[in-house]
Amino acid sequence: MSNNDKPSFTDISTIGEFGLISQLTDNKVSVQPSTIKSIGDDAAIIRNEQECTVVCTDMLVEGIHFDLMYTPLKHLGYKAVVVNLSDIYAMNAEPKQITVSVAISSKYSVEAMQELYDGIYTACKFYNVDLVGGDTTSSPRGMVISVTAVGQANQQDIVYRNGAKKGDIICVTGDLGAAYLGLQILEREKQIFLEHPGVQPELEPSQYLIERQLKPEAQRGAIAYFRKEQIIPTSMIDISDGLASEIMHICSKSGVGAFIEESKVPIHPDSEKTAIDFKLDPITCALHGGEDFELLFTIDEKDLNKIRYMPEVFIIGEIVDAADGIKLHTSGGNIHEITAQGWNHFRQ
Amino acid sequence: MSNNDKPSFTDISTIGEFGLISQLTDNKVSVQPSTIKSIGDDAAIIRNEQECTVVCTDMLVEGIHFDLMYTPLKHLGYKAVVVNLSDIYAMNAEPKQITVSVAISSKYSVEAMQELYDGIYTACKFYNVDLVGGDTTSSPRGMVISVTAVGQANQQDIVYRNGAKKGDIICVTGDLGAAYLGLQILEREKQIFLEHPGVQPELEPSQYLIERQLKPEAQRGAIAYFRKEQIIPTSMIDISDGLASEIMHICSKSGVGAFIEESKVPIHPDSEKTAIDFKLDPITCALHGGEDFELLFTIDEKDLNKIRYMPEVFIIGEIVDAADGIKLHTSGGNIHEITAQGWNHFRQ
Repeated sequence: MSNNDKPSFTDISTIGEFGLISQLTDNKVSVQPSTIKSIGDDAAIIRNEQECTVVCTDMLVEGIHFDLMYTPLKHLGYKAVVVNLSDIYAMNAEPKQITVSVAISSKYSVEAMQELYDGIYTACKFYNVDLVGGDTTSSPRGMVISVTAVGQANQQDIVYRNGAKKGDIICVTGDLGAAYLGLQILEREKQIFLEHPGVQPELEPSQYLIERQLKPEAQRGAIAYFRKEQIIPTSMIDISDGLASEIMHICSKSGVGAFIEESKVPIHPDSEKTAIDFKLDPITCALHGGEDFELLFTIDEKDLNKIRYMPEVFIIGEIVDAADGIKLHTSGGNIHEITAQGWNHFRQ
Repeated sequence: MSNNDKPSFTDISTIGEFGLISQLTDNKVSVQPSTIKSIGDDAAIIRNEQECTVVCTDMLVEGIHFDLMYTPLKHLGYKAVVVNLSDIYAMNAEPKQITVSVAISSKYSVEAMQELYDGIYTACKFYNVDLVGGDTTSSPRGMVISVTAVGQANQQDIVYRNGAKKGDIICVTGDLGAAYLGLQILEREKQIFLEHPGVQPELEPSQYLIERQLKPEAQRGAIAYFRKEQIIPTSMIDISDGLASEIMHICSKSGVGAFIEESKVPIHPDSEKTAIDFKLDPITCALHGGEDFELLFTIDEKDLNKIRYMPEVFIIGEIVDAADGIKLHTSGGNIHEITAQGWNHFRQ
C-alpha cells in the first residue's frame, strides 16, 4: 500500500470530547419503549411499569482483559456489551439499556473510537438494547471500557444463585472451553508474529474457537425458552470464570453440593483437538477456561420434561447434599473434588 | 518513625479478587427498601413501585481526574460517588443505589483499597444510597474508578436540560470557582514539594478551597427543598464543567439565550483572594473552573416567591430569546458573549 492509500486518522483533540460524543451517538433512535430519555442530559430515564430493575457492571482493561494486537476494536465493543447482557440474562431478566464509559489515550483516533462504537451499536441492535448514557474521557495509557447494563424482570421470575436444592438437575446451554482455547491460539500466533513479523497467522482452521473468544454471544435464546415454556430455574449463573468456579458459587450460595459427569460436559470437537495440540486436558479447559458466557442453571426434577426440547441444553449433573461436596465423576470411573482455578487477575 | 512502626501492607494477590471483594463488602446492610438484592449475584435487583429509574455513570482516571500525590484515597472514593449522585439530583431525582468498578495496578495494597472503599461507604451512608454491585480488577498501571448511580423519581417531577423558556430566572445553589482554585493550590504545593522535598505544604489558610476540590458535596438539600415547596424547576444541570459550559448546555437544549449578571455570581471571599494571588480573574474561575457540583437551574417567574426562603440559592440572571445569545453583564457595565472553555480532556 503506498502512502497515498493510507486511510486518514483524525486526532480526537481536533473535535474535543463533546464533538466525539456527538459523532458517536447522534441520530441513534431508541428501540425500547421503556427508554424515556437517552444520551444528552445529566442522566438517562427509564420507565418501569410494574417490573424490577436489574443492574450489573463490568470493566475491561487493555493489557488485562484484551490485547489490541489481535482484538479488532469492533469485536471489543461488541464483547464489552455482551459480557454485561450475559449477567442480566443470568438473572432470568431482559436487558433493556446500557451505559458505556471509555477512557482512551491519545494514540486512539476518532476512527478507532468509531470502530469501537460500531461494535457496541451492533450488539445493541442484535440484543435490542438502547445505549442511554456514558462517559468518554482520556487516559494516560491504554484503554478502559466500563459497561453497565440495566434490565427488567417481574420479581417472581428472577433467578438467583441461591435456589438450587438436592435433586435438582444441572444444565448448561452450550459447549465449554472453546473461548479459552481460542485465546491460546491468538496468543500463540501473536508470539510467532512478534518473533517472525513476516509470517501470516494461521487462524482459518481455528475459526470456531477464535470466534468464541473474540465474539461471544449472550444466551438470550435460553431466557426466551424459559419464558415460553414457563420454566423458572431454581438457580442460574453465567459462565465467565469457568464451570468449576460457577458451580462452586451456586453450591456455596445455595448450601448444597453437586456432582458433574465428565462425559456429559459439552466440549466442541475443535476444542478437543486443540486442547490436545496444546497438551491440555479438554475437561480442564471446560472446567477452568472461562469466557464462554453460556448459562449454568439448575431445574427442579419435575421440569425435566419441559427442557427436553430446549434447542441447546446439556444435562451435566445433579445437585446433592452439601456434605457430599462438589465432585467430578470422570469418564474413567474416578471421582475428583472440583476446585476453582478460574480467572483471578490478582493471583500470580 | 522506626521501621518497626511502619504499618503493614497486604498484597492483594494473597487474598485474590473474591477475597478482596468479600473483605470490602461483607456485612454491609442495605438501607434502601428498594434494594432487593445487593452484591453477591450476577446483578443487583431494585424494586421500583411506580417510579422511573434514573441512571448515570462517570469514570475517574488516575493522572487525568485525580493525582494520588495529594488526593487521599478515602476522599477519592467519596468524590467518585458524589459526582454521580450530583447527576441524579440534577434530574430532580433521588439517588438510591450505586455500582462501583475499580481497576488497580499491583502497587495498591488491600489496605489502600479499604481506604478507598471507606470513602465510598462514607458517601453511601451520608447520602443514604446502597452499594449494590461492581467489579474489581487489575490494571497494568494506575487506577480507574467507574461509578454508576441509579435513582428514582416520579416521571412528572423529572427536570431535564431542555425546559428553560424566556423570562425564567437562572439560579445556582452555591459559590463557584472554589474547587478549581483548590486544585491550583494543591498543584502549586505539589510542585514546591517535588522541588524541595523538605518543605511542608501550606494548606491551612486554603482549607475551604481544598475541601471544595477534594471533598465536594452533592446538592441533596436543594432537591429536598423543591419537593417540600412543590417547585419543579423548568431546567436543571449540575456544574461539573463550569458555569459557562452548563448554561450553554441549557440554552442549546432549550433553544433559548441567557444573560448572567457578573455581580450576582456567588464567589467565596477565599476564592476571590486566591484567584488574585494566582493572577486570575475570579469571574473567569467561576465561569470556567468546574467541579463545584452546585446545581444550575431555571424557574418560572411565578415561582420566585417560593425560592425566596431557600437556604442556599443565588439568582444570577434570566433566560432570554435565543437570538439575544448567551451574555455576561459585567460589573463594569460591559456585555460579553459567554463561550465554553470548561474541562476538555481531549483538547491540548
